[in-house]
This record gives sequence, C-alpha cells and structure tokens, in this order.
Amino acid sequence: MKDLNSPSLLADQVVAALRSVIGQKAAVLHEPSFSGNEWLYLKECLDSTFVSSVGKFVDRFEADLVAYTGARYVVAVVNGTAALHIALKLAGVKAEDEVLIPALTFIATANAVTYCGATPHFVDSEERTLGVDAVKLRDYLEQHTEQRAGQCINRTTGRVIRAFVPMHTFGHPVDLDGVMAVAHDFNLALVEDAAESLGSYYQGRHTGTFGLMGTLSFNGNKTITTGGGGAILTDDEELARHAKHVTTTAKLPHAWEYRHDEIGYNYRMPNINAALGCAQLEQLPTMLAAKRELFQRYQAAFATVSGIRLMVEPAQCQSNNWLQTLVLEHEQANQRDALLKVTNDSGIMTRPAWILMHELAPFQECPRMDLAGAQSLVQRLINIPSSSSLLQVVS
Amino acid sequence: MKDLNSPSLLADQVVAALRSVIGQKAAVLHEPSFSGNEWLYLKECLDSTFVSSVGKFVDRFEADLVAYTGARYVVAVVNGTAALHIALKLAGVKAEDEVLIPALTFIATANAVTYCGATPHFVDSEERTLGVDAVKLRDYLEQHTEQRAGQCINRTTGRVIRAFVPMHTFGHPVDLDGVMAVAHDFNLALVEDAAESLGSYYQGRHTGTFGLMGTLSFNGNKTITTGGGGAILTDDEELARHAKHVTTTAKLPHAWEYRHDEIGYNYRMPNINAALGCAQLEQLPTMLAAKRELFQRYQAAFATVSGIRLMVEPAQCQSNNWLQTLVLEHEQANQRDALLKVTNDSGIMTRPAWILMHELAPFQECPRMDLAGAQSLVQRLINIPSSSSLLQVVS
Ligand SMILES: Cc1ncc(COP(=O)(O)O)c(C=O)c1O
Ligand SMILES: Cc1ncc(COP(=O)(O)O)c(C=O)c1O
Repeated sequence: MKDLNSPSLLADQVVAALRSVIGQKAAVLHEPSFSGNEWLYLKECLDSTFVSSVGKFVDRFEADLVAYTGARYVVAVVNGTAALHIALKLAGVKAEDEVLIPALTFIATANAVTYCGATPHFVDSEERTLGVDAVKLRDYLEQHTEQRAGQCINRTTGRVIRAFVPMHTFGHPVDLDGVMAVAHDFNLALVEDAAESLGSYYQGRHTGTFGLMGTLSFNGNKTITTGGGGAILTDDEELARHAKHVTTTAKLPHAWEYRHDEIGYNYRMPNINAALGCAQLEQLPTMLAAKRELFQRYQAAFATVSGIRLMVEPAQCQSNNWLQTLVLEHEQANQRDALLKVTNDSGIMTRPAWILMHELAPFQECPRMDLAGAQSLVQRLINIPSSSSLLQVVS
Repeated sequence: MKDLNSPSLLADQVVAALRSVIGQKAAVLHEPSFSGNEWLYLKECLDSTFVSSVGKFVDRFEADLVAYTGARYVVAVVNGTAALHIALKLAGVKAEDEVLIPALTFIATANAVTYCGATPHFVDSEERTLGVDAVKLRDYLEQHTEQRAGQCINRTTGRVIRAFVPMHTFGHPVDLDGVMAVAHDFNLALVEDAAESLGSYYQGRHTGTFGLMGTLSFNGNKTITTGGGGAILTDDEELARHAKHVTTTAKLPHAWEYRHDEIGYNYRMPNINAALGCAQLEQLPTMLAAKRELFQRYQAAFATVSGIRLMVEPAQCQSNNWLQTLVLEHEQANQRDALLKVTNDSGIMTRPAWILMHELAPFQECPRMDLAGAQSLVQRLINIPSSSSLLQVVS
C-alpha cells in the first residue's frame, strides 16, 4: 500500500485512500447482500405457487414498509420509475403541465414526467445537500411565475407548473423545510423521489413521507433490492387506494367479471419479488450500520487528502449512506476524469454524477432555471464503492 | 358423482362433467406448477447476487425463447403490457393514431394503445378461432378507410390507422393468413398479442412470429410464469436492438457516463424473474402435454352434454390449451350466469370472457365496427379449470 504522506498525484492519493479502506480486491460501486431470510422466503413463495399478482408477501412487504418508514400507506410496484409515474398522475399532472425536478438526477425522474404528457422544468441543486436549492428556486419562481386561480403559471410558457419533485441525492435528504415551504407557497403538489433514500431521515422523520406522496426504488443497485421494485408512500387513504387500483389494471373487485373503470397499468410488484423484499428489509438496519461504518472509515482515510472531501450527511439529517461521494474542490474539478480513469483502471469502480438532464437529447428544449450549482457539482462529484458488504471482505 | 344420464339441469350436467375430469377437489382456473429447476436457478441467481438488471438468466431466457419460438430475436421485459406498449411504439404508433384491436380481449391490449397516445379501434371476432374476423374486417376497412400516401385513413375520424393487433384468444391462433393479408393490403403494422399463446402454432409456425413484432406474457395465470414478465419477438435486428435500448432507459453503453439518447422505460425483466423463466421454459413441453390430455378428457366428458361444446383448436393449428373454454349454443346463452354461479359455488372456478372493450368506461367513445360476433361469443363463453397440474391431483 502507498504511503499517504509521500508527495504524489491526487489520483495516487485517492487510490491509496480507497485501498486503505476496501483492501486490495476489485470493488464495484454497489452490490446487494443476501444474508438473511431471502432464501427461505423465496422458497416459501415458490412452494405456495403464488409467485405473481396474488400472494401474502406483497401485503407483508407493504406492511413492513409502513412500519419502517412511518408512512400511513404503502403501495408496492414494479419499480421506482413506475412509482413516480403513478405518483405524478395521482398528483394531477396532465398533458401540457410542467413539473419542477432537479437537473441533477437520474433520468427516471424526468422520464416519469413525460409519461404523463408533461414537461420537466429543471431546478438547480445546492452544495450542502446535493439536492434542489430551495432558496434559489423560491427566488426564481417569484420572478418567473404567477398565481392564477390557485395554479402556478410559468409566465414564459403559459403552462401550469403542477408539481415539484425534489430528490434525495445518493441518500442525503434535501432541504425539506425549504422545499415544503416552496411547494406550499406556490401551490405545487410535492412528490418526493426517495428512490435512493430508504433509511434516510430528516429531523427524525423518514424521507418520502413529507410530500403528498413519496417514491422508493428497490433496483439491484439500491440499499435493499427486490430484483426490480418500487413503492409509493402516502398518508392519504384515498390516494393509496387509487394508487393500488391503477397499478393493478383498475379492475373492480368481482368473482368473475372483468370490469375496469379507468385506464390502468400492470405496475404491481410480483409476489416473488416482494418475498425477496421482506427478507431484505429485515436486514436493512444491519446494512445501514455497515454502510455508516464504511462512511466513517472513508472519512478517516480521506481526512489527509487535500483537494477533495467526502460528502457528509446534512445537518439534522441521518443519511442511509447509499452511495459514498467524493467532492472535489473547485480548483481540482479538472481532475475528475483522470480520477475516474485511474480508479476504474485499478479495479475500483467509481462514477461521476449523472449528466445533467438538460444536456440530454430528449430534454434539451425543456424550461430551466440557472443551473450553476448543479453544473459545478457535476464536475466535482465522484461516487466510490459503497456496498454494505465491503468491510466484510477486508482481511 | 352424479349420473350424467339422469334428467337434470344443464348446470348439474356441467358440474358433473367437470367433476368427472378434475375430481372432487376445489379447482382454480389456472395455477402455475414448479416441478423442474425453478428452485435451483433461483438459488443460483441469489447466490450470484445478480438478481436485478444485470445477469446471465435474462440473456439465457431470451436465447431459450428464440430457440423455442423460432423468432430471430427476443427481448425479455417486465410484463406483457410493457411488451405491447413498446412493440406499438416501435411500430410507429403515435399520438392521434388509431390501432385496430379485437373488442374481445383483455384490457391490456387497449391500454397499451393509449400509452402511445393513440386510440383503440375495435374489431369483431369469429366463432371458429375466437379471434378477429379477418373477412368481416376487410369488408369494413374497404368501406370506411382510404389509402393516402401509403397510410390507412379512417374516413370518419380522419385519423391514421397505424397498426393492427390481433390476439390469440385463450391460446387459439387467429386466422393468420386472413389477418396478414388485411395488414398488408391496408398498410397496417402487424403486432401479434401472443400473451396467451406461448406454445401455440399456426401451420407449424409459432404464434407471435408472423407480424412485425409479437408479444408474450409470463404473468402468474399464463402457461409458464416468471412472477411477472413478458417478451417482444421480432425477426428484425434493428427493431430488436431498439426494443432492448428503450426498455433499458435508452442508456448508451459507457464505463461510467450516464447518457441517454431518447425517452426510455424501465421495462427490463429482472434477472431473478428470468431465472424462474428459464426453469419454466424447460417444463413447457411437459405442461403442454398435460394440458392437451386435460383437453381430451374434457372433450370426452362434454361429448354427452347437449347445448354446450368444448372449444377445439382451429384447423391447421396447434393450440397450447391455455384456458379450456366451454361454448354455449345460442339457445343456452341465457344460462351463462347460472352456470357461472353454480360452478363457482361448488368450488370449481369458472369465468366468462372479458367484458367487451367498448363497454368499459374508458373506451366507450372509441371507434368500432359492428361487433355482433364478439357480442354473441361473450354471452356464450365460459373458461373452466385448465392448470397443467390438474390431472395429477385426481386420485
Ligand atoms: C433518483 C432516482 N429516481 C428514480 C429511480 C428509478 O427507480 P427504478 O430503477 O427502480 O425504476 C432511480 C433508480 O434507478 C433513481 O436513482
Ligand atoms: C390478451 C392479453 N394481452 C396482454 C396481457 C398482458 O400481459 P401482462 O399481464 O403480463 O402485462 C395479457 C395477460 O394478462 C393478455 O391476456
């Protein structure tokens, strides 16, 4: 292992710091770990023959998520993208509307807006949380929108801005007080994209439970996985009922009749995936503890590396430490690609943040505010290996 | 067991005939059977930790489906509804288009059309196949459409009829010669909804491989299941590539960059569901044989019941016998609901065909041709227990 104090390139120091934590093996960014009842529940599910749309694991997974997150209702669905689609639809997002979302997010947030026939409207992000900058957004909305009949109208496009979808980036809670005040003051339906933040809390309350609805993802790269999966969280009984209804083809209950009363979706989570979810959720506290330990080791290792810092959870927040993130100082931003190359070449998977949404071909014409914060961040963020199982492999 | 020859109501005779085949136990309409490598592959998948978007079972399931169906390319997706959505989108279906689909189908066919922003246009069905009546449809199109610049224009609405989606009802192949000729002559993209017909052949060729694209479903009620799942079949390399691309968020391959070049979907099949699919597909020949045997037993049992017949596979076709279907004679149509009640009350699950699409609230205003054939059929069809495992439980 390299001596951290020897004069060396930033890249060498970063590789050395990473190796000091994760050892000499190759490491991916995030891999799931199945060390609980996964095996047992899958077998139980298979033996019951109820692997599909009917079965007790879906009900149980929803109940377990209610207990874990504190949301009053949870509807399990096929993935986080579907959860967002339906949450936006039930929030009233219609064709020709606009929806505020961060430019710094995974494309699913933007795609879900388009599935409703609406247009994403991109918002800047702040250094402290990596999430939307509520102060800057308020200022922007004051200048560029007006209220008409209780609706927020974009003065430039004339369209209704119907909803606002902040996202808890890499598990770090967004400035929810600021975000909720903006949603309230400008009459925007608040839907939290909590795909990355299962196990993250803002002032002691679970992310995804502050807005009208929140959405989770259980994709394979997330803290817990169901293979593919997602969920809608809400405290509103009628929204929950409706979400269940439209995600299960909007069929009315009947012994044999197939009557559907609106256009629905096949978005329900199969029972076999929920079986995996039940076991994974049992492991979540253990995994979160392991991920916090990993964070602390990285923090110690990077304390001596100048020009770069490890992202820490915002004040009054508890982050799930989903993806550990290095933040380059502004002067080092030009080193990002070299760092990515050196780390990946040496078997340590690292990744920059996503390309900002407004730079992607399908979204280049969408409305947006000044994105200086997100533009600066995206040049300086590097995700590093973050699996809960990483420390176990160090000898 | 009742004596079939004693004078009795039709309902008593039907129950007796069903009981003579399935025994005295309660029976559901269709349940999956896991008697092969399901468990082994699930375990292998879990142990590999690749349960989600990456993993060898998805590739293998696709390859196995290529081998089984004879389609040149197969793209596994999250369910049959998603398969239809993407097949229609790639067939060029756009907002304001119309798409011909049978009125007698499961709602997913119609929903998928609306996901493209298009309108379903309902077509009648014929007695012989339970699928679209190509002869009647040709006549209708001749009277109500005209060709303009190689497009089929609905004279009444002025809209383009872009595509045609016949469906192989309960596994029985539609009149593919008639259907293909209509699609060809009227410039309609042909997409086969083969959700119900895995293992069904028309003149020796697998259903779903005749159109530009075909779609399968592996929902829990289908012949084989992946929990939830579907697939797109096509012989067109570029369509297959594009289908894979848009069903996996349209991300361009890169070691770390997240660049997406169009609006995509999270429609990929998780690896854990594909693991189940690989094992189920190995069992398909055995299941099909068991289902054929069940058909033959039902046929013998119902030979002596007058006023009702068992649906048989159309000429030159091999049906997968997905759902066994009783067809009431016209004079007995008024007995359908009594039969449904008596059978369900005695623990034998039966079901009528779906309510016709144009009678459902979301589709009442959609264009349609005369639907006399479908209307008559829907009053006379009753699905009866059809699981491949049914005969094994008879003592
Ligand atoms: C911010 C964000 N939103 C939405 C999603 C979509 O979730 P899924 O992949 O389960 O569809 C993800 C994860 O992929 C995500 O990171
Ligand atoms: C005719 C038809 N089309 C489409 C589908 C949709 O398939 P899935 O349930 O997998 O979305 C089904 C099955 O449910 C079906 O029977």
